[in-house]
Amino acid sequence: MENEFRLADLAARVGARLEGEAGIVVSGVAPIEEAGPGQVTFLANPKYAVFARETKASAVIAKSRVEGSQAAFLLSDNPYFTFACTVELFHPPMRPPAGISPAAHVHPGARLGKDVTVSPFVAVAEGAVIGDQTVLYPGVVVGERTSVGEDCRLYPNVVLYHDVRLGARVILHAGCVIGSDGFGFAPSPKGYRKIPQVGTVEIEDDVEIGANTTVDRAALGVTRIRRGTKIDNLVQVGHNVVIGSDTVIAAQAGISGSCRIGNRVMIGGQAGLAGHLEVEDGIMLGAKSGVPDSLRASESRVWSGIPAMPHPTWLRLAMLLPKLPDLFRRVRRLEVGKIPKGEE
Amino acid sequence: MENEFRLADLAARVGARLEGEAGIVVSGVAPIEEAGPGQVTFLANPKYAVFARETKASAVIAKSRVEGSQAAFLLSDNPYFTFACTVELFHPPMRPPAGISPAAHVHPGARLGKDVTVSPFVAVAEGAVIGDQTVLYPGVVVGERTSVGEDCRLYPNVVLYHDVRLGARVILHAGCVIGSDGFGFAPSPKGYRKIPQVGTVEIEDDVEIGANTTVDRAALGVTRIRRGTKIDNLVQVGHNVVIGSDTVIAAQAGISGSCRIGNRVMIGGQAGLAGHLEVEDGIMLGAKSGVPDSLRASESRVWSGIPAMPHPTWLRLAMLLPKLPDLFRRVRRLEVGKIPKGEE
Amino acid sequence: MENEFRLADLAARVGARLEGEAGIVVSGVAPIEEAGPGQVTFLANPKYAVFARETKASAVIAKSRVEGSQAAFLLSDNPYFTFACTVELFHPPMRPPAGISPAAHVHPGARLGKDVTVSPFVAVAEGAVIGDQTVLYPGVVVGERTSVGEDCRLYPNVVLYHDVRLGARVILHAGCVIGSDGFGFAPSPKGYRKIPQVGTVEIEDDVEIGANTTVDRAALGVTRIRRGTKIDNLVQVGHNVVIGSDTVIAAQAGISGSCRIGNRVMIGGQAGLAGHLEVEDGIMLGAKSGVPDSLRASESRVWSGIPAMPHPTWLRLAMLLPKLPDLFRRVRRLEVGKIPKGEE
Repeated sequence: MENEFRLADLAARVGARLEGEAGIVVSGVAPIEEAGPGQVTFLANPKYAVFARETKASAVIAKSRVEGSQAAFLLSDNPYFTFACTVELFHPPMRPPAGISPAAHVHPGARLGKDVTVSPFVAVAEGAVIGDQTVLYPGVVVGERTSVGEDCRLYPNVVLYHDVRLGARVILHAGCVIGSDGFGFAPSPKGYRKIPQVGTVEIEDDVEIGANTTVDRAALGVTRIRRGTKIDNLVQVGHNVVIGSDTVIAAQAGISGSCRIGNRVMIGGQAGLAGHLEVEDGIMLGAKSGVPDSLRASESRVWSGIPAMPHPTWLRLAMLLPKLPDLFRRVRRLEVGKIPKGEE
Repeated sequence: MENEFRLADLAARVGARLEGEAGIVVSGVAPIEEAGPGQVTFLANPKYAVFARETKASAVIAKSRVEGSQAAFLLSDNPYFTFACTVELFHPPMRPPAGISPAAHVHPGARLGKDVTVSPFVAVAEGAVIGDQTVLYPGVVVGERTSVGEDCRLYPNVVLYHDVRLGARVILHAGCVIGSDGFGFAPSPKGYRKIPQVGTVEIEDDVEIGANTTVDRAALGVTRIRRGTKIDNLVQVGHNVVIGSDTVIAAQAGISGSCRIGNRVMIGGQAGLAGHLEVEDGIMLGAKSGVPDSLRASESRVWSGIPAMPHPTWLRLAMLLPKLPDLFRRVRRLEVGKIPKGEE
Repeated sequence: MENEFRLADLAARVGARLEGEAGIVVSGVAPIEEAGPGQVTFLANPKYAVFARETKASAVIAKSRVEGSQAAFLLSDNPYFTFACTVELFHPPMRPPAGISPAAHVHPGARLGKDVTVSPFVAVAEGAVIGDQTVLYPGVVVGERTSVGEDCRLYPNVVLYHDVRLGARVILHAGCVIGSDGFGFAPSPKGYRKIPQVGTVEIEDDVEIGANTTVDRAALGVTRIRRGTKIDNLVQVGHNVVIGSDTVIAAQAGISGSCRIGNRVMIGGQAGLAGHLEVEDGIMLGAKSGVPDSLRASESRVWSGIPAMPHPTWLRLAMLLPKLPDLFRRVRRLEVGKIPKGEE
């Protein structure tokens, strides 16, 4: 499963500058505490430089050399990116063989591209289109007229409802659901009446979405996730939400209906956004934040807390909250000092 | 996929009063900013009246006429409800053809009603009962002795454990799990011992439950969701919970074991309720609230915050929290003003 | 489905001391408010002793006799544990018959143990190993080279990615996903680049994991859940997390990447932990807590709140928060009392 490279060749392939012996052979990657001879490791954070000094790894990917280390160095301005390329070299993506399992169920009115993998127990409905090289793992369900681009991976038991559109190189992890009905009901004296959710979902190229995440179809119109955005596990994306490009959303966050999330936004785990609000480009939102209103970059680039406030304010608040009981006591003392007895 | 109506006919069918030309023909619905000629749109909120003035839609569903608009008006006391009916007219629910796929697995000891749809890779176990007109999408699993009422829709990969009961017209979205074991373990010196969860789940008529939501079976007795209640995606309903009628629960909320939720309750997204508590009829609970104790309508109808408090209190608190660091400074100043130097 | 026992025999089997008539026959268990003649019930909490006095149950499992009750008593130092054993006696676990469904898809290069149940629409990939007596319910997917121990239960639509390892007697509830890619991306000027997640997941003996919970595989190395730990529904476990033995994690909690959770830890529902932190053995973390830093048992055994603080502090804080608007007013009053008019 692992390949071998001379350090000079590895450096050339991943675009790093080698400081060390060109001829050393490496055959794998490992965390810095565990790496041994023949392995490459990675110094993410200069504060862990001590590990680079002690490591038995043959080579360390880093921003700059660490004095006192016996290892060779693969230097890069973006070591995390270089690390990504290195891991990929040693572990080229596995791909199940192309072909349509006789245990799959593909409607004769569906269109499959070249070199598609359709695993057992996959159901592809009428009018669906599957792009070249795309892999559908077991139990994937593709609804009527849904189209999936080239070179996508839909892991086991992913469900795409009808009329959904996926771009190229989209990765959906197991159990992810795209296109379920948005949550819309009109109250009436006889109980709630369902608002039919007749819109759809469009997911652009190079999006990755985590396991058991749910993305609802629009009531009318389109729920949209733009190019290159990455969404973690168990996230909820409500109907008519638009999420920009290169945005990152951590696990268990929830985006209520009709939110507009910008480009290069970062949303922390378990954060929640109320409906119909806007988060401007480049904003960072802390884990577990609760956002009742739109977030403007002009006011703050980083927000946290419940309700969300500029991050420096939240940091001070978080330090002071445990001291609030004491503050109550202090105010009481001030009052008692001021208020003549009998007036209380 | 879309139908056509003269406005007079549409008004009659959805119970609205037409102000405008009876003979105008409309063939679809669209959001107010996007709607064009031949389309009907919807004015949800009088504060968006400006859109009604500028819209190119042929007709607007609203509570009252908006001066200056060129569109016809379909007036209704409950425009959201009228909108729901209108969307349904233009988009009558699609229904896969009835029939049992040869690629499904139905135990000979299961009983299927009339005009049932059993899709490929559906597994129906011994003793299960499926009501007339019910649709089981691909990958649905129905456990032993579980009964599903008439005209239900179970979207792909829904799982019903054994001995669960569903009423009529229940909609379960993809990946929803009903009847998994409640979370009950008895500590012992040798580790936790599982409390067998030998109760069940009953879901009454007209309930809708979102994608990847989980509803645990009771330890003993029944976890119950009453008629007409609507639950969003990724919600957790613990064992022995009882949820009343016409209650609405937004995405990622969590209801701990043995809670009793009343009728016409509204629970916001990511709200969490501790175990064994009661939420009285008609209560509204804000998004992200944390509820440690029972909520009484006599104390407040609307609750929010962590811990949950009457909503007006939470609104004031939410405004003041970012000012808490300043309050600490102000109290310090008061103390310094009072306390003679040297005493500190 | 239920069995019958004389009380004396029942007491002997579950290790309880009988106070009452040995010959009374019981045939089931029920909650204390509902139990009738012929049933056993359970007094969890001495404060519900009133129910034990009024119950019509034939016998009550409890720590000590309740005066005034007509029922027999089954006394135990650990009544909850004794209750677990009793329920199990009356409801011995059901087991689907062993055998491989012709509607399953088992790769010829997979290895199945003795008396394995492989249900319809189960996919077992090349190199997978399934231990003796293990049950795979419909729709389960087992990836390449993944091994599952003896006597496990994988409920419908569970997904195990490739190279995952499960111990013996592991229970995974429906829709649970093990081994999905961790959330790791390196930013670059051209957008995010995926860090290939080339580690794995190991789950030790006697672990139980709830419905639709997700456990990500390590980037490098292993995400590990140790013996006897119990995890509820919709929980997120990030890449490279290590969770100790006999730990309990309630629904919708989220554990970020590289956390180290100790043994016998208890984590409440919807709690969230930031990445790379440590929670020491035996710590209890309240529901909905937000944990930004490691938790040390020497500082407090019980933590709660956002941010997490020692539980007694949080309890005081939670009582005071609704009074904060009033505190602002009180401080204002103090200031006005101090500050001469005109200076404001």
